[in-house]
Amino acid sequence: MIIVGEKLNSSIKEVREAIALSDEQYIANIARSQELSGADYLDINAGMFAGSEAERLLWLMEATQKASSLPLVIDTPDPTAAEAVLRKYSGKKPIINSISLEAKRFDPMLDLAKTYGTSIIALCMDDNGIPEAAQDKLDIAHKLVSKLNAGGISSEDIFIDPALSPISASYEAGKSTLDAIRLIRKNYPDIHIICGLSNVSFGLPKRHLINRTFLVCALTCGIDSAILDPEDKDIIAAIRATKTLLGKDEYCAAFLESFRSGLL
Amino acid sequence: MIIVGEKLNSSIKEVREAIALSDEQYIANIARSQELSGADYLDINAGMFAGSEAERLLWLMEATQKASSLPLVIDTPDPTAAEAVLRKYSGKKPIINSISLEAKRFDPMLDLAKTYGTSIIALCMDDNGIPEAAQDKLDIAHKLVSKLNAGGISSEDIFIDPALSPISASYEAGKSTLDAIRLIRKNYPDIHIICGLSNVSFGLPKRHLINRTFLVCALTCGIDSAILDPEDKDIIAAIRATKTLLGKDEYCAAFLESFRSGLL
Repeated sequence: MIIVGEKLNSSIKEVREAIALSDEQYIANIARSQELSGADYLDINAGMFAGSEAERLLWLMEATQKASSLPLVIDTPDPTAAEAVLRKYSGKKPIINSISLEAKRFDPMLDLAKTYGTSIIALCMDDNGIPEAAQDKLDIAHKLVSKLNAGGISSEDIFIDPALSPISASYEAGKSTLDAIRLIRKNYPDIHIICGLSNVSFGLPKRHLINRTFLVCALTCGIDSAILDPEDKDIIAAIRATKTLLGKDEYCAAFLESFRSGLL
Repeated sequence: MIIVGEKLNSSIKEVREAIALSDEQYIANIARSQELSGADYLDINAGMFAGSEAERLLWLMEATQKASSLPLVIDTPDPTAAEAVLRKYSGKKPIINSISLEAKRFDPMLDLAKTYGTSIIALCMDDNGIPEAAQDKLDIAHKLVSKLNAGGISSEDIFIDPALSPISASYEAGKSTLDAIRLIRKNYPDIHIICGLSNVSFGLPKRHLINRTFLVCALTCGIDSAILDPEDKDIIAAIRATKTLLGKDEYCAAFLESFRSGLL
């Protein structure tokens, strides 16, 4: 299970303010606490700064890298902003978040992934938007994998994102995403499948409960990575229990070790 | 989702003592609190009383029926004990828990189900014991359904139990049971699939976490019923969130209603 820390995101008010004020200490604290909580990657997003996203994202990258040596997930739909960051990025191989089948996004993002040797999140979305039906998500995943492979990106560097929508807007969105995950896993046993969790609960109460429960469903269907809050102890406990229940923890040794370490 | 309350079970020390002392009030309190918490059925078990199980189970049935009008799940591998109870049982259609392919259990339990017009839990077990592999569980499920149908039990009265073993004894037991649930659901879209939860966590710490997480996994794979503690608020919240995430809650209306009622 690969955990991407979601908290360095400008859609969170305090983070947005810290970016606006160039408050390096605030960013450093969030970066370090996510790392200490077990994140494997840190997502960085400055999408709320329309007009100055590239510059703000670059600052956020530098502030984060001063505090943590974790590899970053560069979260922007804009190839210009992504390149501004990648040009200065140093350290372990980052992930671009994300490419899609959208015409103006695919080629430039693929170029960046090749030029800078990154992994890439491939979002199941095209110029018609995000499809709801599982089969349509799979069809886009097929196209993404085949075009990325043909473009020189190996499957181990591809993280398919089935594009989870809020269930408050479409109450079958969770189900169709889970079905898509199962179909993608069946077709690509060795590819990464990633999910951003917080979207699913948008507009509903008890968001932590919904996010955590969806994560268990999605792990059962075949994801191996997720963008989430690694400081949410309940979600980390759910991940550890699910891993053990899915037979990925020989003699339950990791679960027992987590218990002894007070992580459950 | 059909919830069977698990708490009237002689393997629980206080219940065993209440049965031994014929303490009707204690039994009545547990029966009522499970009903208030949303149980659809109440499981009754006197299996710890070797030699007097039939008599104790009959007393437990009568004490329970004085307090609750919920239908009961008569939990015994012994056809003699089951019949002692069924002869005196009144009220909504009960469930026998359970029949299996074991030679000395199948015919007498089938006779009881037909004679008394009950539903029946069909455990994936034969004279070789409980198989671990998913395909072997499915093979037994096929035989159980076909023999029960041939014996006059309609599919809506059959609850297949894939026989979940503790993961502390065999760390892949959870995975193989989940795979079995998926296979059984694929083969029998309309049959009940039931799971006793507490077994899975036997011998491990954080049993509530494991049980609750397994329930979410199992619902994702296709169970529609479970034997569990309906007074565990976290497990009820997980059931409600999962139902909504699996697209079985139009406009998330039930989830929002549960939230407003303080059930989450």
